[in-house]
Parts: sequence; structure tokens; C-alpha cells
Amino acid sequence: MITVGIIGAGRIGKVHATSITTGIPNARIKTIADPFMNPKTAAWAKSIGIKNVTKDYKDILKDKEIDAVLICSSTDTHSKISLEAIKAGKHIFCEKPIDHDVAKIKKVMEALKGSKIKYQVGFNRRFDHNFEAVANAVKEGKIGNPQIIKITSRDPEPPSPEYVKVSGGMFLDMTIHDFDMVRYLSGSEVTEVYVQAANLVDPAIGKAGDVDTAIITLKLKNGAIAVIDNCRKAVYGYDQRAEVFGSKGMIACSNDSQSNAKLSNENGVTGEKPLFFFLERYMAAYQKEVKCFIDAIVNKKATPLGVKDGLEPVLIGLAAKKSLKEHRPVKISEIKF
Amino acid sequence: MITVGIIGAGRIGKVHATSITTGIPNARIKTIADPFMNPKTAAWAKSIGIKNVTKDYKDILKDKEIDAVLICSSTDTHSKISLEAIKAGKHIFCEKPIDHDVAKIKKVMEALKGSKIKYQVGFNRRFDHNFEAVANAVKEGKIGNPQIIKITSRDPEPPSPEYVKVSGGMFLDMTIHDFDMVRYLSGSEVTEVYVQAANLVDPAIGKAGDVDTAIITLKLKNGAIAVIDNCRKAVYGYDQRAEVFGSKGMIACSNDSQSNAKLSNENGVTGEKPLFFFLERYMAAYQKEVKCFIDAIVNKKATPLGVKDGLEPVLIGLAAKKSLKEHRPVKISEIKF
Amino acid sequence: MITVGIIGAGRIGKVHATSITTGIPNARIKTIADPFMNPKTAAWAKSIGIKNVTKDYKDILKDKEIDAVLICSSTDTHSKISLEAIKAGKHIFCEKPIDHDVAKIKKVMEALKGSKIKYQVGFNRRFDHNFEAVANAVKEGKIGNPQIIKITSRDPEPPSPEYVKVSGGMFLDMTIHDFDMVRYLSGSEVTEVYVQAANLVDPAIGKAGDVDTAIITLKLKNGAIAVIDNCRKAVYGYDQRAEVFGSKGMIACSNDSQSNAKLSNENGVTGEKPLFFFLERYMAAYQKEVKCFIDAIVNKKATPLGVKDGLEPVLIGLAAKKSLKEHRPVKISEIKF
Amino acid sequence: MITVGIIGAGRIGKVHATSITTGIPNARIKTIADPFMNPKTAAWAKSIGIKNVTKDYKDILKDKEIDAVLICSSTDTHSKISLEAIKAGKHIFCEKPIDHDVAKIKKVMEALKGSKIKYQVGFNRRFDHNFEAVANAVKEGKIGNPQIIKITSRDPEPPSPEYVKVSGGMFLDMTIHDFDMVRYLSGSEVTEVYVQAANLVDPAIGKAGDVDTAIITLKLKNGAIAVIDNCRKAVYGYDQRAEVFGSKGMIACSNDSQSNAKLSNENGVTGEKPLFFFLERYMAAYQKEVKCFIDAIVNKKATPLGVKDGLEPVLIGLAAKKSLKEHRPVKISEIKF
Repeated sequence: MITVGIIGAGRIGKVHATSITTGIPNARIKTIADPFMNPKTAAWAKSIGIKNVTKDYKDILKDKEIDAVLICSSTDTHSKISLEAIKAGKHIFCEKPIDHDVAKIKKVMEALKGSKIKYQVGFNRRFDHNFEAVANAVKEGKIGNPQIIKITSRDPEPPSPEYVKVSGGMFLDMTIHDFDMVRYLSGSEVTEVYVQAANLVDPAIGKAGDVDTAIITLKLKNGAIAVIDNCRKAVYGYDQRAEVFGSKGMIACSNDSQSNAKLSNENGVTGEKPLFFFLERYMAAYQKEVKCFIDAIVNKKATPLGVKDGLEPVLIGLAAKKSLKEHRPVKISEIKF
Repeated sequence: MITVGIIGAGRIGKVHATSITTGIPNARIKTIADPFMNPKTAAWAKSIGIKNVTKDYKDILKDKEIDAVLICSSTDTHSKISLEAIKAGKHIFCEKPIDHDVAKIKKVMEALKGSKIKYQVGFNRRFDHNFEAVANAVKEGKIGNPQIIKITSRDPEPPSPEYVKVSGGMFLDMTIHDFDMVRYLSGSEVTEVYVQAANLVDPAIGKAGDVDTAIITLKLKNGAIAVIDNCRKAVYGYDQRAEVFGSKGMIACSNDSQSNAKLSNENGVTGEKPLFFFLERYMAAYQKEVKCFIDAIVNKKATPLGVKDGLEPVLIGLAAKKSLKEHRPVKISEIKF
Repeated sequence: MITVGIIGAGRIGKVHATSITTGIPNARIKTIADPFMNPKTAAWAKSIGIKNVTKDYKDILKDKEIDAVLICSSTDTHSKISLEAIKAGKHIFCEKPIDHDVAKIKKVMEALKGSKIKYQVGFNRRFDHNFEAVANAVKEGKIGNPQIIKITSRDPEPPSPEYVKVSGGMFLDMTIHDFDMVRYLSGSEVTEVYVQAANLVDPAIGKAGDVDTAIITLKLKNGAIAVIDNCRKAVYGYDQRAEVFGSKGMIACSNDSQSNAKLSNENGVTGEKPLFFFLERYMAAYQKEVKCFIDAIVNKKATPLGVKDGLEPVLIGLAAKKSLKEHRPVKISEIKF
Repeated sequence: MITVGIIGAGRIGKVHATSITTGIPNARIKTIADPFMNPKTAAWAKSIGIKNVTKDYKDILKDKEIDAVLICSSTDTHSKISLEAIKAGKHIFCEKPIDHDVAKIKKVMEALKGSKIKYQVGFNRRFDHNFEAVANAVKEGKIGNPQIIKITSRDPEPPSPEYVKVSGGMFLDMTIHDFDMVRYLSGSEVTEVYVQAANLVDPAIGKAGDVDTAIITLKLKNGAIAVIDNCRKAVYGYDQRAEVFGSKGMIACSNDSQSNAKLSNENGVTGEKPLFFFLERYMAAYQKEVKCFIDAIVNKKATPLGVKDGLEPVLIGLAAKKSLKEHRPVKISEIKF
């Protein structure tokens, strides 16, 4: 039985808390911390069996009984708390991204060197049943050598312009998941990126200095080419698809819906929209990633996504930003590390 | 080069005429006959290269140059003209059904005995690409021993009550195609039929003494069971599907649409309706069946659908009528032949 | 918070126990009873937080703290324990079927009369996301008046001949779910049934006095016709589909798979098989039905499936057996009640 | 009735000849010319009703009875024969591309200025039922403002290295169709192109100086972004898909197969591969484009694809070649015209 503390009781902290209490029998949450802890959140925590609540995450780090922490606080605190948790000897599950600043990720990497601490980054989509099936087909050689990887990733609704300003930009906030997906599905590393992007959804996003629609081309070490298409707003819902084409075939996955029922009438044959957004689509994936983390601790094996897996997508994201600014293909090696 | 005469210049006669002139290079139509032949039809015939038009089909039967006739006249004349054409030594393609009266079909069978005349019945659906793929999978053993055969056959629009009165009833008019399909897909013979039917679409059909909605269960010689569901009106268009389930798997086909384009928006993911009706869905099948008929003549081989194939669905249809009337399962052997 | 006792710790008892502990926050299981309770089961019970285990279900009935029982014991005990639980004043969730003997179901109905006890029968499929979507479309009038209801229900593997002998026959054991589904999707009652069945899967099933393949036609009070096709063995897995066709359109649902990934290669375009069997396909439905039961208790409202809903499918099943035996359509009213 | 001459009796010349004789009643082919005309081809021509065959296409240009010519000769002769045919006053259907040399296309444009000659370029895919449905949905505003256009275009088999050497390279030989498709589906013009390409299919193609796999990003005048993915070899057959995503939704089309039959067995649920190659997929489109050409002559209206539509994809193709060479985004305006 692994004793866990959760740092951050926002949306994603709550998702992980519920996942653990309902589906991970060999983990128990002892404490949840949030600087804005209030009676309502405290009552919720109690209702799902969490013993302690606190405003200070250090209470968790100091607690000898706690084996592992889930860092679900705001992005700017991820690397700092990671470093402190490493010092405190806790295993760490850290929400993506570790940081937007490569230097800070580097510090986490260095702090982990030689330690036995398990570190996992929260790229939840790797644990989605559809993407897993695609990745497994590639790994098993069913499509031969990968040649073209295609990711479609579109959100149902754009973030607020306020959020856009502090988000690090679409590539570090949204596309970062797709950069990880390219690495996951190809089993290779990105070496170069080219961005063609535009501000088509909401002029306020443009005023906030960001784009909302993009085609991103990536060159991979294994010779394959990848392309991501992003949009901050798809009126039909969360569009999350992937396709890997290779010398022996193609494996592709599409969206999930609430049901597969189809209505035939004078207007045609109509199926349901994709599941609305990430909480609907990836709920099982969120549970599975934490299960794997706990399993890595219990069985003393590597986590499925280490700190390097947290770093690479940030490097690609920074190269993508540079490509957009300089309107040219940018090598990942141009980004200082 | 086979020289052909077409008897009947109604809808289906025109379909065959166009099929031959545009897609069957080794057949030419010399004459087309219709009791209601008028200048407009004559002009149409000329425009597609048919030399002669006549009101009297006997002009065709007397013409020594003509090798084969297509009987596309009204149903009540099929067996009579068949007999005359046999006497005249013409190969015969006869639209379904040969007759509703089994005794008359019997006469055609007897007249054909010992002759070298090729006789083919117009069950066009056997030549549809989707049903052919299903039948081929069954023949090739891909689904093992057939156990359940399911046919869905629904029209987009009910016929007029006037037509219903002279149609011989839904089972002989519409379901007859599905009875043929059961034989085609199962490679076996029907031994018993049970009908559960209702008048749900249009009360006028009921007043005309017919049903418009039915579930028909069939027992087959090879041990399999089949079920047909019919309706005279499907608002979404012509619904023509089949499924054969067996010991090693299932093969199923669905409808065709004008395109496979799918629109995703706030209402869901919408594809097109099925092709509207039989002329849209089966145009290629109509051409293919006549190609096979001409091929049988040219290469002196059996036609794919002989007079027995014209008889069996009529027997099943008559048994279905009896089952509906007597509300019990009826053996095909109960129908006098 | 509702306190629950579970009677029966077999496969389905365990499913419900897990559902409650992981997903129903306002219910807690105090005791689980099983005549074959052993240390392994006891350990499992403890591991998911169940306080007490017992061999005697009467310990549960006697416990004043327990509000509700889930009867998951063998079929022959369902009605007896139901009666005892009613006497003890417990709310009851009873696995299907209540009994194969109509007289015994009648006794349960009578015992419930006038009481405030909530009684729910375990027809889990009504809580499946796909069937719910179909039923909702019908209820919302999207397909107009239902005219044809079609249910496909095929198991991946036949039961053992030993099980077949005590199962009550395919209609009461397997098709009973489909009889319920016809009632659920049509919103109407079955008035007549006709069975065409065969023994095609395994001769041992025939020797045990049962069939394994069937087409079952049903007449409904609202004028619609329904058809169920069953087979005890589909090599591609659990095949669970439904279609409702009506005056304004058709709503249909198909199977679920582990993922929607599709592999395109020289052999074609291949998607996954349906989920293997009922535990895979209906896990979420099992949880949802118990949630609804608890909700009915907490909010003092009717359960979604009362004792009448447990009775009707048994009546239809008995009529189906009679139809098979007498080879004729049988009215439900012929079955004594 | 339009009298037509066909210049070139290779594969595509034969396709057009058959299309006209079987499906375009208001056109007749008087003469077919080919420098390699032989008895076999002459016999074929006669069998489909073409009166004259010749080795010299000038016989066609000189023939006062001939209204229109179809230029189906080798690419390097397209612009030259176009100019001669303009001089001879013939309407012209010219296979794509008009030329790889922009200056030569310019000459054709100038020669056409002020004349009443109808000129159509053979971008057949615009007449495919699936792509038409996508384009129509866009034109009708069903997806709002286009934001992302995606084209997948993969051949089933790579060309021979010999062909590659004279083909003008993949972008002018294969992708040129996709450049046209982007213009067709977006209703806008391409302003910039970026290529990421590789030689992954066959090293011999690389030795011949070409690539075989590519992701091509395009910027459009209306603000949208487009992406094409190409491969010279897809083992599962000809992969031709398109997707247009916009502010109000998405419209997408997929491949066609010989039938829609699906086999379910222990390996999964398998549908057929896409139709093998362009002759199978686009046969109806080839006929429709010539119908439109004849219709434009008869009804004195514009052809659906003028000489400008022949020019633009060549400009984009040349820009793509430059982008590949210089590894940077290239503006179409950089290509001299």
C-alpha cells in the first residue's frame, strides 16, 4: 500500500484524487494540499476518504508516512516543488509540463541523477485505449517502418485571452501533448520543426500574442515525417485522432462518442459528436497513468514517462515558437539546453 | 454479336436498352416493341441506335435475325410471351416474376425441357457488388456453415393502392427479391415460412387487402434459419442490407450512398442517406445481369438464374401468403406444384 | 448513506460489490453472504472494505442496520429470499430472473403490494450507453411510431451442457434479456411470440434438450413487430445490437470494442472484435443499475425496473418454449398467471 | 452533336474514347490519332465505333467537321498541340499538366485571349463524387470559413525509376492533383508552400533525384492553411481522402471500395481495401469531366477548369521543388511567370 499526498486541489488534482480512491486499491491518499483550501474542498476531500487537508504543501513533503506526491499545482510551481520533493525523498508524479524553462527542467534532471526516486510526467493521452492500440500496432511491427505520422488535435472551445497570456502559447500549452504523442507513436525523436499558423478563431487570442490554428511539420530521427494540425475551436467537440502510415500498412484511430447509436432519417445518417473534452475523453487514461506510477513504485520498475519525456516536448514547443517567429524550419538542437 | 429484341418499353425496358447500348459491346438491339409505342418513345429508341420500333412484340418473335428477347412487359404477359418465344427459338431474359401462377411457370419449364434455349430470370440484386461480396464470402467458406441469414429490405415509398391491388401482394411483388436473396446467400432451399405482418404505413394498403410491414422467418434445407424484415416505407430511403452468420464468422453488407462524405457539426456526425431507390442502387447490377445473359448465349453456358430460380421465390411467396392468412408456419411443400 | 448487504459472492455478486465500493459514494456494503464463503473470498471482501462476511444470508436479513439487499445467489433461491427480505423490510435488488415459475413471481408481487419496499430486477442492459441512446431516441419521438424492432444477441461461447440442463433453456436463460430489451426499446408489451430454432452450435446442447440458435418473432401491443436473433456462439465475440425502425426514421446501435483503431494493409481494413462478453461490455451498466437502485431508495422514487418487469420476460420466455414445442405462434395470454 | 478527335491512344486516350462512346450521347468520335497507331489499336477503335484512325494528329486539326480535340498525348506535346489546335479553331480538352514550363503555358493563355475556344484541363478528381460532396458542402457554407484543408494522396505502387527521371518530380507528376484539390476545396489561391520530404519507399527513386514521401504545407489567400501528405506506395491501395475544417464544422471524405461487405471473425472486423488505383477509383469522374467539356461547348458556357486552373498547380509544384531544394517556405510569387 502506497501512501500518497496530492499537491493542488484544482480540477486535475480532483481527477487524480477520485481515480485513486475509486480505482487504485494499493494506494491511499493521506493528505491533499492547496493554497486556496476552503471548507467546500475540505468536505469533498473528507467525503472520498482523504484524512487531512492543508494549505501548505510542505506539510506533505515533511510527512514521513507519505511515499509519493502528485504535483497538480499551477505550472510555474512544478519544477520548484519537484526539486523540494526530490530532496524530501518522495516519488513524484508531476503534471505536464515540468516547466516552460528548459534550465529549470535541467535542474530537476540533475537532482534526480543517482536517486531511486520514481518520476513520472502526466502525459495522460499515452494511456488512452485508442492511442495505445495505435502505438502497440506500431511497436509490434504491424505497419512496418513508420513513414508518416499524423495527429489531429482540436479543442472544443478556446481558452480565455487572459489564460492565453500566461499559457506559454498554444505550442507549450496545447500542442505539447501532440509533440509527446508524435514521440510515443513513432518511437523516435523529433529533430526539426516547421510551423504554419494563423489566428482564425478569436481575434482576442491574436491580440494576446498567440495563434489558434496551426499545421506543424516535424522531422524525426528515424527518417519519418510527422504532421500535427491544431485548432483551439472545433464546434463538433474535442477532436483527437492519430494515424501512423508505414511500409507495411496504416493504423489509425478516431474519436469516441457517448454511444455508437446512429439515427437515419430524411437528413441522412447521424452519429453522435465526439466526447466533449479531455475530462470526458481521457477519464480512464487519467486513472491508468496513476496506476502505472503506483505500480512503478511498488514493483521498483521504471515509470512509463520519465523526466526526459517531460523535457523533449518542451524543447519541440520552444523550437515551434521560434519557427513561427522566424518563419523557417528550426532544428531542435538550436534550442539551448 | 448477339441481336436482341426488347419487349416492353416501360421503365425497366428502357433500363435494359440503355445498359445494352452503353455497356454490352457484343449485343445490339434491333427492335423494341410496346403496345403503347408513341413518337416520343420511338425517338428515344432511335437516339440510342435502335433501328426498329413496333407495337406488336410478335414482329420480334418472327424476326429470324433476332437471337434473344428481353421480356419487360407487364407481369401477366411474362409466361405467355415466354412460351411463344420458346416456340420461336429465341433465348429469353424474363423480368421477375415469370408468373404468380405456379401452373404457368410449370408450362414454361416444360416447354424449355430438352431445348437449347437460354432462359434467365431478372433477379437483379444477385449482381449487386455488395450482395455478391457477401455471397462470395459464404461460397468461399469464410463464415463456415451458415446458421442465420438476415435480409433487410425496405422501400423508400409505398406503391399506390391501385398498384397494390394488382401487385399480387407484398410477398410476390416486393419480398420475392428477398426470397431469392435468401436462396442466393445461403446456397440452400427454403422449406418453411412463417409471416408476422401488419398494416402500419398506409391504411389504404390495408383496405386494398395487403400488408406493408413484415417479419418473415424461413427454415432452410441446410439447417440454417433466415429472417427478412420488410417495410413499404423507410423515410431515409431504400434500405437494402444482408448478413450471413455462421460457424466461423459473419459477413454483412450495408447500403450505398451518393458519396461517403461526412459532416461533423454541433448536431453530430452526419453521412448521406442510402441511394434513393432501385434504379439508383442497382443500375450497375441491371447491366451486369444482361451481360451475363449475353455471355451465356455467346459462350454456350448456363445462365446464372434459370427458370427454377424464377419458380422457387414464387412458391415461397405463395406459402408466405398462406402463412399470413392462416397465422401459422407453412411448408413450401404445401404449395401445389 | 445506504447500508447494503450482498447475498451471493459469485461472479455477479463480486461485480456489484466492486461497483458499489468504487463508484457509489452514498452506499456502503456492511456484509456479504455466501454458503461457500471461504478465506480467499473473505480476504477479497476485506480488501475492498466490506466489514463482515457470513455463510448465512439470514445474518443480513436480521441486521437492523442494513437497508437494502442485493440478491446475487443462484436463480432457484431468488424468489424465496425475495419473500424473506420483504418480510424483513429490506429494499431489494434481485438479479434476473426472479424465478422461472410464474406462481413464485406472483407471490413476490403480492408480498410487495402496499409496502414501501423498493424492488428492482437486474436487467443490466437497459443501463448500457448504447441501448440507452436507442431507447431515448424512441422516447423522444425521433423515429416516430415504432414499426420494427430488431435485436441481435449472440454469445461468444456456449455454456456447458451441464449448465444447459439447469438453465431453464436458452429462452429463459439468455433470450430473457432480449425480451426485456424489446419491452424497453418499444415501450410496449409483447402479446404473441413465434420461435424458429435449431441446434447448430453443439450437439451436446441438443442432447441436453435445448436449442442454441433462434429467430424469435414478437407481436407488440402497439402494433409493432419485433424480431430477436440468438446464437450461443459467435466466434468474433459478444454480438449485442439493436435497431428500432419507425415512421420517421431508424435508430440503431452496434457493438463496442476495446479501441476504435483500424489497421489497413494488404488484407483490407481491420477493426477490433466486439468486447468479449458481458463483463467487458456491461461493466458500466452494472454499476449504473445499482446507482439507480440506491437513488430510488434515497430519493423515494420508483425503481427503473419493478417486479412486473421481472415477470413479463419470464412469461414471454415460457410462451417461446411453448411455441418451439408446438411449432406455432403462442399468445402470451396462453401462459397461466 | 459535337464531333470529336482524340489525340493519343494510350491508356488515358482509351479511357476518354470509351467514356464518350458509352456515356456521352451528344458527342461522337470521328478520328483517333497516335504516332504508334497499330492494327490492334485500330481494331479496338473500330469496335467502339470510331470511323478513322491515323498516325498524324494534324489530320484531326485539318478536319473541318471536327469541333473539339482531346489532347491525350505525352506531356511534352500538350502545349504545342494546344497552340496548333487553337490556331485550327478547335475546342480543347487537354490532359494535365499543360506543361512543366510556365512560359509555354503562358503562350497557350495568350493564344486563347479573345477567342471563343473552350479550353479545359483534365483534373479529373474534381468530378469524383466524394470530392464533389466535400466541395459542395464548403461552397454551401456548411462548415463556415475554411481554416484547415487536409489532403491525403498515396499511390499503391511507385513508378519505375525510369519514369521518375522524366516525370518532372513527384510534385509536378503526382502532387499536382492535390495542389488542384486544395484550390478546388478551399475556393482560394495558394500563396506559399513548404515541403518536408524524404526518400523512404525505394532508394532507386532517390538515385533518380526524387523524393517519394512528403508533407506539404500551404498558405492560402483566404487565411486558411492546407496540408498534403503524399507517399508513392501504400500497400493497402490508392488512398485518396480529403477533409475541410472550418468555423462551423468539418466535412471529410474517405476511400471507396469494391463493396462495403465486412467480415467479422476471430481476427476482427475486416472491410475491403480501397479501390486499387486511379482507373478504378476515378472512372466515373473521367466520364463526367468530358461530359462537362462537351456541355460547355454545346451550351456556350465556361468550362469548369480553364487554362488558369492548369497553370496554378504548376506554379505551386515549382515552388514546392524550390522549397525542397532550399529547405524553406517559398512564396508562389517567387516563381517567375
